[in-house]
Formats: sequence, C-alpha cells, structure tokens
Amino acid sequence: MRHLMSPLDFSVEEVAQLLDLARDIEASPEKYAHICDGKKLATIFYEPSTRTRLSFEAAMMNLGGNVLGFSSAASSSASKGESVADTIRMISCYADICAIRHPKEGAPMVASMHSSIPVINAGDGGHQHPTQTLTDLMTIRSLKGRLDNITIGLCGDLKFGRTVHSLINALVRYENVKFILISPEELKLPGYVREDVIKKNGYEYKEVERLEEVMPELDILYMTRVQQERFFNEEDYVRMKDFYILDNAKMSLARPDMLVLHPLPRVNEIAVEVDADPRAVYFKQVQYGVYVRMALILTLLELKG
Amino acid sequence: MRHLMSPLDFSVEEVAQLLDLARDIEASPEKYAHICDGKKLATIFYEPSTRTRLSFEAAMMNLGGNVLGFSSAASSSASKGESVADTIRMISCYADICAIRHPKEGAPMVASMHSSIPVINAGDGGHQHPTQTLTDLMTIRSLKGRLDNITIGLCGDLKFGRTVHSLINALVRYENVKFILISPEELKLPGYVREDVIKKNGYEYKEVERLEEVMPELDILYMTRVQQERFFNEEDYVRMKDFYILDNAKMSLARPDMLVLHPLPRVNEIAVEVDADPRAVYFKQVQYGVYVRMALILTLLELKG
Amino acid sequence: MRHLMSPLDFSVEEVAQLLDLARDIEASPEKYAHICDGKKLATIFYEPSTRTRLSFEAAMMNLGGNVLGFSSAASSSASKGESVADTIRMISCYADICAIRHPKEGAPMVASMHSSIPVINAGDGGHQHPTQTLTDLMTIRSLKGRLDNITIGLCGDLKFGRTVHSLINALVRYENVKFILISPEELKLPGYVREDVIKKNGYEYKEVERLEEVMPELDILYMTRVQQERFFNEEDYVRMKDFYILDNAKMSLARPDMLVLHPLPRVNEIAVEVDADPRAVYFKQVQYGVYVRMALILTLLELKG
Repeated sequence: MRHLMSPLDFSVEEVAQLLDLARDIEASPEKYAHICDGKKLATIFYEPSTRTRLSFEAAMMNLGGNVLGFSSAASSSASKGESVADTIRMISCYADICAIRHPKEGAPMVASMHSSIPVINAGDGGHQHPTQTLTDLMTIRSLKGRLDNITIGLCGDLKFGRTVHSLINALVRYENVKFILISPEELKLPGYVREDVIKKNGYEYKEVERLEEVMPELDILYMTRVQQERFFNEEDYVRMKDFYILDNAKMSLARPDMLVLHPLPRVNEIAVEVDADPRAVYFKQVQYGVYVRMALILTLLELKG
Repeated sequence: MRHLMSPLDFSVEEVAQLLDLARDIEASPEKYAHICDGKKLATIFYEPSTRTRLSFEAAMMNLGGNVLGFSSAASSSASKGESVADTIRMISCYADICAIRHPKEGAPMVASMHSSIPVINAGDGGHQHPTQTLTDLMTIRSLKGRLDNITIGLCGDLKFGRTVHSLINALVRYENVKFILISPEELKLPGYVREDVIKKNGYEYKEVERLEEVMPELDILYMTRVQQERFFNEEDYVRMKDFYILDNAKMSLARPDMLVLHPLPRVNEIAVEVDADPRAVYFKQVQYGVYVRMALILTLLELKG
Repeated sequence: MRHLMSPLDFSVEEVAQLLDLARDIEASPEKYAHICDGKKLATIFYEPSTRTRLSFEAAMMNLGGNVLGFSSAASSSASKGESVADTIRMISCYADICAIRHPKEGAPMVASMHSSIPVINAGDGGHQHPTQTLTDLMTIRSLKGRLDNITIGLCGDLKFGRTVHSLINALVRYENVKFILISPEELKLPGYVREDVIKKNGYEYKEVERLEEVMPELDILYMTRVQQERFFNEEDYVRMKDFYILDNAKMSLARPDMLVLHPLPRVNEIAVEVDADPRAVYFKQVQYGVYVRMALILTLLELKG
C-alpha cells in the first residue's frame, strides 16, 4: 500500500504516468465516472481549507465515490485529546482512502504509519502540499507541452511559501529549468532551497527585486500570496504586500505565450484586470487540480480506467 | 445559462411551468430519481441556515446528484480574504450548479456574474430569498388550487421580513389578490412595498393592528417570526414579540378552509397547540420546498424528466 | 414505525437478530451495497462527535444511501431558537431515517415523538448511547462467541461512564455474567446500577481498586476514559487519571484469550504498547460499530438483504 506525503514520493516516470492518466480523465471523464462506485474518501481537515477539501471531494464524486469527514479540528475528536494515530485507525474502518490536512508538520506521516488505507498529505503546516505541486506540474505540462526547458519566475513570498519550495524541488528533476527568484530582500528564498536544491543540482537561477525587469524572459510566472500571518509586525506587511502586484502594465512586458499561475486564493497580488488575459491560467489550474486528484485517487487505490 | 436571483426572474408563465414540474415530481418522484446522476450541487453558505441548506441538499440527492460545499464562512476561504468572484470561479470547477447564501445583499448577483455554472440565490441578507417565495407559491397553489382570487393576511414583522416583501412582489402578478397587513405600528410594511408594489399595481390592502379582527376574512394567513436581532433594544422586543401569537382561540375565528403558512423556524408566534389543526400547513410547506428546489435545479440545468 | 432510544428497546431475541444481520453484512457486504439506494440518513448532531457521526455516515454509504445533516449546534437552526420537535418535523421532510445526538437527556425521545421517520439516539448527555452498547455486544459475541457465561471487568470512571451503565443493563439479560468493577473510590458505580440492576437481577459482582489483582479472572476487560470534564477540580483529576492505565505489564497477568475493549477515544488509559497485543480489540470494535449501524438502519427501515 502506498501513501503520498511529498511530491518526490513519485519518481519522474511515475509523475509522468499520473499526469498521463489525469490527461486521459480530462479527455474522457465518462470512462471514469463509476470507477470508485462504493468507495469512500475521508477528508480529515484539522484546519479549514475549502479549496483543497472541495477539490478532493469533487474528484472522488467525479469517480462515483462518496465522501465523509470533518472540515475543522473543532468538530473532530482531536478536541477530546485523541492522537492522530488513533484517529486514522478509526478512519481506516470508515473509508477506503484518506486526505489529511493538519497544522503540524509530519502529522500526515504519523497518520500514514498507522493507517490501513492510503493516506494523502493535503497540507501539513509550512511543510508539504504535494497535490498542489502535482497540480502545478499538470498545468505547466498541459498548457506549455513540457516540463523541461522552461524559465520560471517565482514571485512574492519565497521565504515562507510552501508551494514555491515544493515546486522547485519537483522541477529540478527536469532538464534545463531556469529559476528567476523575484522577492523583497526580507522574503528571499532560503539558502537550504537556493543552495541545496537549485545550485547543488546544477540549475541556473537569479534573484531580482523587481518583477518588471524579468517579465520578458519568462515562460511561466508563478505568483504567490504575501500572507499577513507570516509577518511579525503589521508595518512590515503593509509596506511590502503591494510590491509585487501583477497588473496589465506588467503583463504587457511579457511574452505572448507566457503563463501566469497562482496556487490561490489570491488577495490583491494579481489585479482583477489580469483575469481576462488569456495568459492568466490560475482558474484553469483549479480545474487541473481536480483531474490530478482523480488520477491520484485511482493510482493509490490501484484502480484502472 | 440562467441564474435565479429574485423570484421575479421567472415570468408568470415560467413560474407556472416550474410549479407544474414540482407537482409532477411530487406525484412521481421515481421518474426523477436518477436524472442528476453524476451531477454535483455546491452549497456555499457564508452564514448558517440549516433549513435552506438541507432542503437544497435533499433536493439534489432526490435527483440522484451529489452535494459538496461549506455551511459557514468560518470554514471557507473567505477567511483568507478571497472575493466571492474568485470563490465562484473555483466552485465552477467543482460543481454543476450552486446555491449561495451570504449575509451581504448582492453577493449572489456578483457570484452569478463570474460563474460558469447556474447560481441560485439562497438568501442574501434582508434582500431576497427566492426559493422561499417559490415554496410559498407552491404551497398556496397546491393546497388552495389557485394563486389568484385570494385574501392573504401577512402577520408579524412586516418591516424587516424579507419573505413577506418577496411574497407580495410575487403575488401582485396574479389577479384579485387582497392583502391584509397585520403588525404593530413599529413593524409596519415599508412604503416602498405598500405604495410602490401593492397600491401602484392596483391591488387592495388594509392595515390592522389586531389579528383577531381579520381572521374571518382570510384565505391564507402568512405568519412570520419577530426576530430579536431586528430590534434596537431588548425592551421593545419583549413588549411586542407576543402581540401576534396565533393560538387555537384565534384559529376558531377563521374559515374552515383557511391555511396557515410560516417560513420557519418559528419560535413562539404560533402556539404548539395549533400544529394539530389541519389548516396548519407550515410543515407541509417544508416538503413543498424540496419539490420546488428539485424543479428549480432541473430547470436551471435544462434537464427533462 | 420504530425508533431506537435505549439498547433495551430491543428484546434479547431482537438483539440476536440484529447481531446475526450484522454478522451477515460483515461476511457478505456486497449483498447490501445497494439496499439503501435513494434513501437518505440525516445526522443531526447538536454536539460534535466525529467517531459516532462518521460511523453512521459510513454505514449508510456502505448500504448505497446518502447522508445530510449538521455536525454541531452552531451550524443548526437551534441557534435561532427552534425546538427539537420542529427540527425533526423538518428533517422528516428531508430524510428517511435520522441519527440524533444532543447534550440534553431526553432530546432524542422528544424528537421521536414528533418524527415521521425512524429516529436513532446517537447519544444524549450522560443518559444513553445505544449504538455503542450494540457495538460492544457485537464485539464480544463475534470474538468470544457468546454473551453469556463471561466475567467482565469494567475499569475507570464507573460513576459517570454512560457506556458502562448501558453495557451492564444490556448484559444482565444474559446468563451467568459476572461483573468486576474496577475504579477509585470516588468514581465507583452508582448504587442505582450496582444494586438495582446487577444485584436485583441476581448477578454476581465485586468491587476492587487495583486492576492487577483481577486481571487473571477476566474474559473481557472494558476500559474507559477518565474524562477531565467530569471532575469538579483539576487536582482530583490529575491525582486519579493515571491510576488505571493498562500497559503490557498488566496485560501479562491476563488470560491468553482475554479481550480488551474501549469505547474510544482513548487518551492515555491504555498505553500505546498494548495496541500490538492481539487481545487488544478496540480498533476492531470500531469496525463492528459500522456493521451494527448498517444492521440497525436496515432493521428500522424494514429492509431485507
């Protein structure tokens, strides 16, 4: 039995198979509409995340399966002092597969060690969020046609941004990827990613402070939210949050085939006017997220289309 | 693609078609039991409303469909600052149709403007609650046999009562409806409904302070709750809340075929002893609400029985 | 139409039939996978209880049915002052069967009196929790092969422990059951159970303070949680909570075929090291809980396999 804790749990070949399956699901959803009839997904969310939870639930329902679970710790037995290990043993009696989100790093790993059903990490604190990364990969591959030979700009909060670290780790398995790191000094990519992941693996990168100056080079622009809760004081947040706002003026500097991705939710880091630009694919990304999760559920349950 | 924002979105003919469909669903539910197989309804409730949410969910399940969503803003991405426009774009990737409830007037309208799936307004503040109105119309038509030629008493909080305003707007499209407005001075029907809707359209009405004096005239008595949160001070609430309580003594003054409706939940404005009276149809009204919502889902999804 | 308020609502013969049905479901789940197609279970939880709620939901889904409801009072119309009687009348329009949990004793009974669908008490304060008791009985009968001729140790909080009182009431309908009551002086079994249930029915019992001294005698050890909220002061709780912790040292004193049950969630009253012991069956108990609830839903809906 297999779990998904990190996007690196799958080899490059396995990622390719997963994305191929997701593409086939996109092309022929009716083939998969009853493949999980009688199966149940448990969504065990110790902190709310509507987007991720509903994406998993839509995915399971698209496969014909059912969903049960809880959407916040308040309505769970965690409030009675139960351990994650005991909770997953209980959930193993109720469902065939489980997606777990937890504010503590490593909680999904603990769950997977005591589970008798496949466990998917649906986000553990600032640590991993592998289905977001798989979604990003599918979006790039589907709309760009490739995962290698790309120049990707990563913009915003690169210090705390879990999705950015995770995406970098996933992309250094493909050839000739160039990273442009766009952030204020205070939110630069940490050394353990810049040095140990990008540089050590022999990939090219550069760090810049202004989005405008690199727009023309990019194949992909990956925008991220500057989360207020990551800041220690209000003043710093207010000063920096608007530094890296994407608008039509900046978009006019980019290539006609550049793609803008965003893990969402966005607050104001992408102006609403950009939504109408065909290069803005962050809502398509949401749809790809459903296909990837469908493919993942099938893969972990070892079901064929 | 069509949305439902206000009960007036449907013409009189379309309302008749919808209620005909609801009646056929009531008569032959098995014909409709699989018509939404593989479809998903999203219930996006930014404020809790068990009655409305579960009515929509039961409706979709009765049609063979699935349901996903959230039941309060706390467990949604709204708490991360996401706009309704972005949320509905996400939901459009997850579901085939959406029912949205929001404390702010106009939020469902904003959602409908950015949605790629049909959006149903399931209540927006004090503004509109169209499926309640359609439920009221079905209840009257089913049990009274007609929507024209009726004398309807509207009792309680006519000032803030959204369902009352909405029902009046819906009824002034039928012939010879007479309105009896029963409320304390402080909670009288606002001029923009009394003058601009009832009077301007040439309908008869009268305003009274005592329920007893008009009971014998009524074909329909529409009771409403006096909501504590609508009052500015506790004292006013306590003084007025019991003025308009319906009990068996008052019921004895009414015609044998008068019907009592109530949008529910009731607190104490209808004494429990009245429940046993066959003229009390407020629980039947709940059941009609399910049929109407089933008909509405089918209509907006353009599915036939 | 029949409800389940107390485990004693079923006669000994009816319990045997229910457990036979549950055993058949365990053996041939596919026979029952579509028996509730098109049916709906409402889970009406006025206080959170993930374990019980999800067990009911998994049970209904395993039978092919759908689930709707709410998981805490905050998201229900109770907050608008609606009575349980009115809520169940509404729920009767939405679902075919209902499981209700309420902090107030007797609330499920009130619901059953106004319901037009079968109502299951899913726990009412410190009063009854009949599906837990049926689960306990199924676990003992399945793994021990009998409900009579057993010596059962009940350990922990016997004063406030609803499941313990309920299990004792259920077991005094079988022959030759011996009760060993293991608790601190402060949490002893109340006289109205010890005298009026055990002694009056002619059953043997003894009360001890130390778990070790009785381990060798037991066929079944039923462990319970010492709930902090039952104590009037923190000091008493801290002093007593670790008195009755089951660990491998104590397990080594027990018979090779003794079974350890626990209604869960456990906090620290059973050391994690015990989980690996084949005599620890508290997670199997969770699985039996699903089968019992499936059998119960079928029985109350009068459906055959």
